[in-house]
Amino acid sequence: MSTEQTERPAETSPAGSWNDRPAPRTPAEWLTRAAEVGAILAADAVERDRAGQTPYTEVQLLKDSGLVTLLGPVEYGGGGQTWETAYRVTREVSKADGSIGQLLGYHYLWSWAVRFLGTPQQIAAVEELATTNRYFFGGAVNPRDDDLVITEDGDTLVFNGRKTFSTGSKVSDLTVLEGVLEGTDQHIFAIVPSAQDGIVFADDWDNIGQRLTESGSVRITNVRISWDDAAGYVNREFRPLVYNTLNLPAIQLVFTNLYLGIAQGALETAAAYTRSTTRPWPYGGDNKESAVDEWYILEAYGDLQSKLWSVEALTDQVGTQLSQILHGDREAVTARQRGEIAVRVAAAKQRAIDVGLEVTSRIFEVTGARATASSVGLDRFWRNLRTHSLHDPVAYKRREVGRYTLLNEIPEPTWYT
Amino acid sequence: MSTEQTERPAETSPAGSWNDRPAPRTPAEWLTRAAEVGAILAADAVERDRAGQTPYTEVQLLKDSGLVTLLGPVEYGGGGQTWETAYRVTREVSKADGSIGQLLGYHYLWSWAVRFLGTPQQIAAVEELATTNRYFFGGAVNPRDDDLVITEDGDTLVFNGRKTFSTGSKVSDLTVLEGVLEGTDQHIFAIVPSAQDGIVFADDWDNIGQRLTESGSVRITNVRISWDDAAGYVNREFRPLVYNTLNLPAIQLVFTNLYLGIAQGALETAAAYTRSTTRPWPYGGDNKESAVDEWYILEAYGDLQSKLWSVEALTDQVGTQLSQILHGDREAVTARQRGEIAVRVAAAKQRAIDVGLEVTSRIFEVTGARATASSVGLDRFWRNLRTHSLHDPVAYKRREVGRYTLLNEIPEPTWYT
Amino acid sequence: MSTEQTERPAETSPAGSWNDRPAPRTPAEWLTRAAEVGAILAADAVERDRAGQTPYTEVQLLKDSGLVTLLGPVEYGGGGQTWETAYRVTREVSKADGSIGQLLGYHYLWSWAVRFLGTPQQIAAVEELATTNRYFFGGAVNPRDDDLVITEDGDTLVFNGRKTFSTGSKVSDLTVLEGVLEGTDQHIFAIVPSAQDGIVFADDWDNIGQRLTESGSVRITNVRISWDDAAGYVNREFRPLVYNTLNLPAIQLVFTNLYLGIAQGALETAAAYTRSTTRPWPYGGDNKESAVDEWYILEAYGDLQSKLWSVEALTDQVGTQLSQILHGDREAVTARQRGEIAVRVAAAKQRAIDVGLEVTSRIFEVTGARATASSVGLDRFWRNLRTHSLHDPVAYKRREVGRYTLLNEIPEPTWYT
Amino acid sequence: MSTEQTERPAETSPAGSWNDRPAPRTPAEWLTRAAEVGAILAADAVERDRAGQTPYTEVQLLKDSGLVTLLGPVEYGGGGQTWETAYRVTREVSKADGSIGQLLGYHYLWSWAVRFLGTPQQIAAVEELATTNRYFFGGAVNPRDDDLVITEDGDTLVFNGRKTFSTGSKVSDLTVLEGVLEGTDQHIFAIVPSAQDGIVFADDWDNIGQRLTESGSVRITNVRISWDDAAGYVNREFRPLVYNTLNLPAIQLVFTNLYLGIAQGALETAAAYTRSTTRPWPYGGDNKESAVDEWYILEAYGDLQSKLWSVEALTDQVGTQLSQILHGDREAVTARQRGEIAVRVAAAKQRAIDVGLEVTSRIFEVTGARATASSVGLDRFWRNLRTHSLHDPVAYKRREVGRYTLLNEIPEPTWYT
Repeated sequence: MSTEQTERPAETSPAGSWNDRPAPRTPAEWLTRAAEVGAILAADAVERDRAGQTPYTEVQLLKDSGLVTLLGPVEYGGGGQTWETAYRVTREVSKADGSIGQLLGYHYLWSWAVRFLGTPQQIAAVEELATTNRYFFGGAVNPRDDDLVITEDGDTLVFNGRKTFSTGSKVSDLTVLEGVLEGTDQHIFAIVPSAQDGIVFADDWDNIGQRLTESGSVRITNVRISWDDAAGYVNREFRPLVYNTLNLPAIQLVFTNLYLGIAQGALETAAAYTRSTTRPWPYGGDNKESAVDEWYILEAYGDLQSKLWSVEALTDQVGTQLSQILHGDREAVTARQRGEIAVRVAAAKQRAIDVGLEVTSRIFEVTGARATASSVGLDRFWRNLRTHSLHDPVAYKRREVGRYTLLNEIPEPTWYT
Repeated sequence: MSTEQTERPAETSPAGSWNDRPAPRTPAEWLTRAAEVGAILAADAVERDRAGQTPYTEVQLLKDSGLVTLLGPVEYGGGGQTWETAYRVTREVSKADGSIGQLLGYHYLWSWAVRFLGTPQQIAAVEELATTNRYFFGGAVNPRDDDLVITEDGDTLVFNGRKTFSTGSKVSDLTVLEGVLEGTDQHIFAIVPSAQDGIVFADDWDNIGQRLTESGSVRITNVRISWDDAAGYVNREFRPLVYNTLNLPAIQLVFTNLYLGIAQGALETAAAYTRSTTRPWPYGGDNKESAVDEWYILEAYGDLQSKLWSVEALTDQVGTQLSQILHGDREAVTARQRGEIAVRVAAAKQRAIDVGLEVTSRIFEVTGARATASSVGLDRFWRNLRTHSLHDPVAYKRREVGRYTLLNEIPEPTWYT
Repeated sequence: MSTEQTERPAETSPAGSWNDRPAPRTPAEWLTRAAEVGAILAADAVERDRAGQTPYTEVQLLKDSGLVTLLGPVEYGGGGQTWETAYRVTREVSKADGSIGQLLGYHYLWSWAVRFLGTPQQIAAVEELATTNRYFFGGAVNPRDDDLVITEDGDTLVFNGRKTFSTGSKVSDLTVLEGVLEGTDQHIFAIVPSAQDGIVFADDWDNIGQRLTESGSVRITNVRISWDDAAGYVNREFRPLVYNTLNLPAIQLVFTNLYLGIAQGALETAAAYTRSTTRPWPYGGDNKESAVDEWYILEAYGDLQSKLWSVEALTDQVGTQLSQILHGDREAVTARQRGEIAVRVAAAKQRAIDVGLEVTSRIFEVTGARATASSVGLDRFWRNLRTHSLHDPVAYKRREVGRYTLLNEIPEPTWYT
Repeated sequence: MSTEQTERPAETSPAGSWNDRPAPRTPAEWLTRAAEVGAILAADAVERDRAGQTPYTEVQLLKDSGLVTLLGPVEYGGGGQTWETAYRVTREVSKADGSIGQLLGYHYLWSWAVRFLGTPQQIAAVEELATTNRYFFGGAVNPRDDDLVITEDGDTLVFNGRKTFSTGSKVSDLTVLEGVLEGTDQHIFAIVPSAQDGIVFADDWDNIGQRLTESGSVRITNVRISWDDAAGYVNREFRPLVYNTLNLPAIQLVFTNLYLGIAQGALETAAAYTRSTTRPWPYGGDNKESAVDEWYILEAYGDLQSKLWSVEALTDQVGTQLSQILHGDREAVTARQRGEIAVRVAAAKQRAIDVGLEVTSRIFEVTGARATASSVGLDRFWRNLRTHSLHDPVAYKRREVGRYTLLNEIPEPTWYT
């Protein structure tokens, strides 16, 4: 959807005023900051969705507001916050704009890639670089494509290949790559500058939802890194930890917060519309002066809100638990701990999808026929959720939780569990 | 959505070959004909939906194929079929293109307006005119707007006012108007040529679904008819029959068949995609060579198909019953008969909506992430159904059926019951 | 549950008056007769369910009222009706008493066993015997047990073994047995007198629902039949027809009508309770004088009734189709015809279960807390439906319909498809 | 259901060994204690449910194990725990036996009545008395009956009247009464000894679920208290606090934990049955050696478990919040605080009901036909939940949450909100 705009614009800050204000310090202040960013995004979310314009401005907003460095070390100017807050912030931004919420959530995940896999030196280097510069991360790691092929050229590793999806990479400063060293089964992750000749975006993302995520395909041609930058490798060897595999529960919970945020945004947007615009039904015998006197409307809002609160409580509970693991001792995480949190994430994710799809479709019943005008844009919530919630089959998530419930089995670490 | 194309194009038949073929004679042959029309429409339904182009060509197809005169008397070249077949044909076309299905269903209803209300002479005249010329009907009768104001000018009645929605009128030959004679509470229906200076379309229909129905607003300025053409009036008086009020169950069952058709089209389109394109999930331990080996996919298709068959059986049963009433003795229909069929229609309608919304959203789970590409266009079914199913609140339909079940009460005839 | 009453009581007719009245002749008259029987059963259905008493009296009622010979040839005093009517009669009786409805439906199926499998001579003999004497049929054919073992003793076949379930056999005159001839894979069906020393019932049916169906286990010891009575065998050889395998769709549609009847009975019973007894909620601000003014109650009845009508329409549609096949040319039925009707039956069955479970549980929400008194007995509908609907997994029925929808495959004839 | 046993048996402790063990000190230890009690109750829960026997032994178990004084002050031998733990303990016991879980939860609520309403002196006196003696509380306060009539006799208040329901009072030591002082609109609560001539139980509780709760009707005849014991009255005047009205959210959250516990118990019991007893389906083509290989079974467990976790997370979150209010400054609680927590409780309650009903009915699909044997007793979970969940209409709970979501309104304090 970004076919028109292939030149990268100069990065002008649309909200220079952020710099005049003190940075948030507590989780509550970061959530307020996220809500402020959300309000800016919500103002033209419908129009931007229709235009399908590459979100350079919006990524800049995430940088200016400080949200991109929420997880970064305080010493480099970061927020020093935990994943618990990162998840809530992702959700808050997703309420207003699912695409930008996805970009931010993926950014947090990719910015943590070096933590999942890297050596202490690599971690220190990447965090300083990224936090100091407020760099935005993207990735080109879709596991259902073939791995990128890595060849050795002395001390250099050379990546080649193609990925069908590369969310956010086009609007990022740094891109996470993954490949397999030719002739081995060694997977190697690396972080590379996004703006280089060897990374070419096809600008072919034109889907019914999450339209502003720049999730199109990318071709990687002779992108080179030093062996020293192969994440987690010391002397060309990798010593695996359970911690390395936490990226999966971590990103699946990013998804969960994205879905929940979209659904919450849908309900809030609908409620505002019902209050301001929906008319009571002229028939039916009750004395109704306003749409908010309609039984069926009140009951529907109560039903949907209760469901959302329920999913939110589980998502927050799991978020707190996972955050403790992510910020805890890397060496100490056991396979069982990892498995149990993964199952809980799977449960939260599937509830967020089920409830979210119900909310984003049923909001029309409580807003009415005129709320289907394209200018109202109320369909974007369903389109966004419907699109991303297919990332991996929810039926397999249920099966995963089922094996745990029935057999006390935890899932094998894979790209999806 | 039709802002670009305001000039009416010359009516060239895109399918002149229809004339070389014998007209359908049996209900089965008419359904085959409808399926042929559907196949033509389906070929570019996604592109036309995105373009939002005024459906002159498609209405011409409905004319050329003979579908528009399916209900017309044989003596004037019509099909001489019953409403039972008209409903099934509407559904068949709606499978391929919800917008064109709606236009056709509304056309049948408006073409029957003179039957609901008119004198024998008026009926004969309108049927000859419309059938002979294969005229297409539209309407400007949205009851949630103020009625048009009718003033008398000798033997002439003059209509003025505005309607927010006027489905199909822009692409029609004849438009049904409804107003109230000033200073009285006499409602008067009339059929007028659509192409006249006093009827001006605002071309402001831009909604998330049913995008090609030309349902925008219309201004009526000094549109004149003779008192002799006021439907059902003899010497400026109207003698009401229960039969007059059958337009409501009749059109609500048009809606039902529209919804059912959209849902059936969704499932069929999804099934073709699953067979041809969806990949099995690479994890999960079973031996799956194809997406059609996935348990969850098979179970979902079975669940959705069973629900659709169930709704279809009720819709057909009610269609047969209503058709018998519509083609029976106008004088003999009782309020109880009318009420009971209206309740059954309400039940079918709400089931079609509930099941249809489930089908049109869940099809993505059985087609997968790549099926969200805009080029696949699988979201149009949900958008179409979501949009039209808000015509009147489904909660009130449930209440209506509830009052019948619990209290044996039939609904009062209104614009919605 | 029949531990107290092991002696078979003298068969006294509780309704001798049936004989004074003309037998029903049309389907409508048979339905009226079934409704009369239902009214008698409903009067003490709650008490009988709690007592768990062997239903000798109730089976006698089915005989006296003529329902047992509804399918029997007119020449022998039978009703000469079709399966279409048998299904509706089963459903009507099931509304009042699920157990007796099941017994009647199974009786129809077992009484047709000779039609499915037998030679013309066997058919004539069994139909004369059973119709003339108004014999009641039971069966001992549970396919998830081992087959009975059949040994040859000259012209005699001797059955031995055990079946976990033998619905109705204890209260029947004739029992259908099935076994495999030792040393072969020949399945042989036979009809034998139920009252014989070789058939011993364990009276061990004590389940949460369908408590009066006498579905306990049975031991078969040296039960002898003539080779001539082995159903369908001519000169000890069996020539298979597709028609032989129609027992499966036929009995699955018995189940469907049983489920639908239970659900309809639940809704009707609840509606009577709501009208007579349920109180309006004293809070909530609306002006409610009666429970029937409660929005949520009206909406729930409308929702549930609409769902039931939908399932009923499909069940009737499929019943008509299957009835035509059952009463048509035995030789002409093709595997494809059989498969397609089986799939439609599977669809109807699963909808009846899903909707029925919802109805039988939700009726409490519209009747209120006091309706949980054991004396009201409103839970019997859910218990009855829950119990029988597990006969075979509904998930496999969905899969069966799914394979048809997606792949145009029909199910292999088995004991369950 | 307790018609046979009207004499109160001598209180012999069935578990004297409890006294030999140290009392639990932490919330986790209390939960372990509750689980031990649950294991004892689960062992014969099915048999006791069928017998319908008055639960003297089970109440003694609650006393012996210390659970009844969990909330009591440490100085009098109580556990000194918070409501947060009381809720979890109620849930844990309800997993094993819904009736006993209800009795315990109600006990906690009634034991707190003096906290909700009383003066500091009354609180101290009641807590010492009840904790020291491990007294069990019941209540006779059903608000849909007329209030008891209170007359003055000098310094004495005399209660007369009847209550349709009086859960637990028959098996209690102390009963909470509520009435209105004749000629005024003053509501007065009092705590009286349950064993007195003026309190006569009709032993008429015979309902489909929660059969062991002794919830039958009670007649109160000239039950006398001193004016000094009228809860919260000082010089015959009552100074209301918002805190007084917290009994409603507090008891509604008891219900919620009861429902959740029943549902969790159902799933755990079903899972054990599936693992040990359920057979794989012999058809279907997959290679299934065990029921736990069935896709549909795994998926169902995953779905149900995820839903339960979601409700549990919300219930715990709300429990923590409400507990803080209940143990905080009585004078400081505002109407807004009270209203917001009440809305959250309402949301949790309705989710627990919806999900619980689904779980308790669907467990049969994953255990199979033989699990309907009365001896398995798997229906008790549905019967228990179905019965109590009708306490007040869930539709009004949804409406309550809806008014908050849409209008930011909090509910008026009533007997149900």
